[in-house]
Amino acid sequence: MNLRDDRVLGLDIGGTLIKAGRVDLQGRLSDAWEIPTPLDRPPAEAIALLARAIRTQAGPVRLPAVGVGCAGLVGSDSGVVHLSPNLPTWKEVSLGPLLSQELAAPVFVLNDANAFALAEARAGAGVGLSPVVALTLGTGVGGAVVVDGRLAGGLHGFGGEIGHMSIDWDGPPCPCGNRGCLELFVGRRGLVAAYLQQAAWAPGAVAHDLAGGIRDALDPRLLAEAARGGDPAARQAFARAGEMLGTALANVSNLVDPAVFVIGGGVAQAGDLLLEPARRTLAARAMIGAAGVAPVLEAALGVRAGAIGAGLHAHDRIAGALSAGPRAAAGGQA
Amino acid sequence: MNLRDDRVLGLDIGGTLIKAGRVDLQGRLSDAWEIPTPLDRPPAEAIALLARAIRTQAGPVRLPAVGVGCAGLVGSDSGVVHLSPNLPTWKEVSLGPLLSQELAAPVFVLNDANAFALAEARAGAGVGLSPVVALTLGTGVGGAVVVDGRLAGGLHGFGGEIGHMSIDWDGPPCPCGNRGCLELFVGRRGLVAAYLQQAAWAPGAVAHDLAGGIRDALDPRLLAEAARGGDPAARQAFARAGEMLGTALANVSNLVDPAVFVIGGGVAQAGDLLLEPARRTLAARAMIGAAGVAPVLEAALGVRAGAIGAGLHAHDRIAGALSAGPRAAAGGQA
Repeated sequence: MNLRDDRVLGLDIGGTLIKAGRVDLQGRLSDAWEIPTPLDRPPAEAIALLARAIRTQAGPVRLPAVGVGCAGLVGSDSGVVHLSPNLPTWKEVSLGPLLSQELAAPVFVLNDANAFALAEARAGAGVGLSPVVALTLGTGVGGAVVVDGRLAGGLHGFGGEIGHMSIDWDGPPCPCGNRGCLELFVGRRGLVAAYLQQAAWAPGAVAHDLAGGIRDALDPRLLAEAARGGDPAARQAFARAGEMLGTALANVSNLVDPAVFVIGGGVAQAGDLLLEPARRTLAARAMIGAAGVAPVLEAALGVRAGAIGAGLHAHDRIAGALSAGPRAAAGGQA
Repeated sequence: MNLRDDRVLGLDIGGTLIKAGRVDLQGRLSDAWEIPTPLDRPPAEAIALLARAIRTQAGPVRLPAVGVGCAGLVGSDSGVVHLSPNLPTWKEVSLGPLLSQELAAPVFVLNDANAFALAEARAGAGVGLSPVVALTLGTGVGGAVVVDGRLAGGLHGFGGEIGHMSIDWDGPPCPCGNRGCLELFVGRRGLVAAYLQQAAWAPGAVAHDLAGGIRDALDPRLLAEAARGGDPAARQAFARAGEMLGTALANVSNLVDPAVFVIGGGVAQAGDLLLEPARRTLAARAMIGAAGVAPVLEAALGVRAGAIGAGLHAHDRIAGALSAGPRAAAGGQA
């Protein structure tokens, strides 16, 4: 077996792009490529198209395994995508089995937040630390806990949903069925709403002018730009979101006692506008106190974290199957 | 080595009694005894007194190890009791090293909620399940998460503090420094306060008459009796506490995805008065939904759980030291 053959393929299926690359055991990415997500095709056709792209990119090289990260409710044992916010037409799609058949290689599917967390814990901002608590802040808020390099997903692998921690038991209803969830305060929608509540939405306000007066153009990136440009309502929206984030991190600190928090995703690109108030609130609220509390770091791997984590997951699964013997290997999605 | 020698000693240091017994590898307790906690003695003297009681009870039998559960902030590696609500004069007391010296046996100290959780997970209501989330509801609210029979205590072993999960970010201040913590709503004080807010505190009200008109006599046990006797304000106090408990359990469900919740402690003796509203709220709020949510069970081991868990902890530590070789064994508190 040559070194090249030890690298698996990692895939990250997003709402716009599918990002891919070969991933080695250390989580190093190479031969990266991407294609537009074929949202206009029925799922089976989209999967066949993806398989063709993979074969074209991989050439004659054998793929020992493929890992796929995908947003939404994903069965990590079955490889089924039950539903996904990024892929609105995908309902109960057997992504793992179908792709595995097309490629004649074992395919292992996991939730994209889990992929992000695995990557950052083993090859990113959390390297060498445990437990790692990872959060992605975007339209939604995902998360996962990694202990000694392994996802601590619980009984069904559904753990780590820090975005749906209620920090306001009687607060606004969340689409998840709960009330006062973190996602309502730090997700894209909550951040924009918090801004509009504070802002004088009129010419002269920095965010207003950056958005050309179009409310729907407001997003976390634009608000971060406005905040850096001196828009007080934008600064306040991030301060408030950071306080809510810090409150949730304190809860996680008390429950998990992590060595590090790693924060990624589009909203996190606001950096210290969001993370400084979060750190202050965490230090004030966590039982362990300001001296002992885990650092809150920005994610290190950027947009390729999902593909890297998916690859690491595939490495784990084939290693687990090999060490557990042929019966476990046969039970995979190969 | 005979079977008798394989049993360690488990101790549970409470505010009133020290409970003890021999604990085998399966968590079976035998030769149980107890002594009053010598609160009137300085810590070093109290520890010497405890050691004499242990030697008297143990007779000539060799003790392979001793496990000690103790409320409060406890260094599980150092064996130091930093502070304890049950032992107000104990500050920075080297319980592990001192007791180890007196007994010429290795002594392993852990937090009492961790001992409770270990016992219930391996020999009580959580047997065979993982993860187990255990809570003790009393004056304070303690908790721990046990994964595959091991405490998931995090970096410093301080994890599992579900009592200090904020479910009301802008709520009443908690002595821990946070706001709106679960303990404020379901601990003894919160429960009594919730009752008094609702109650017509006058002759004829069931709880009033049970307490002989003395407010300070109100406690969770009396309120449970009053609720069963038809006191509407007492029923409402438990319903409200149960709803808050269920909200926190839903947060833990989303984060840990446990196989079971095990609830013990004095307040939990109210049984379904508290646990039914908690189960309803958990099912309504948890992302996994009513069909998949973990059951909420009453603890099974009663008042001996602490001693059993302390014994299991000692078994784990000597097994770990043996398997890690003589260097790790020498690093213990022996």
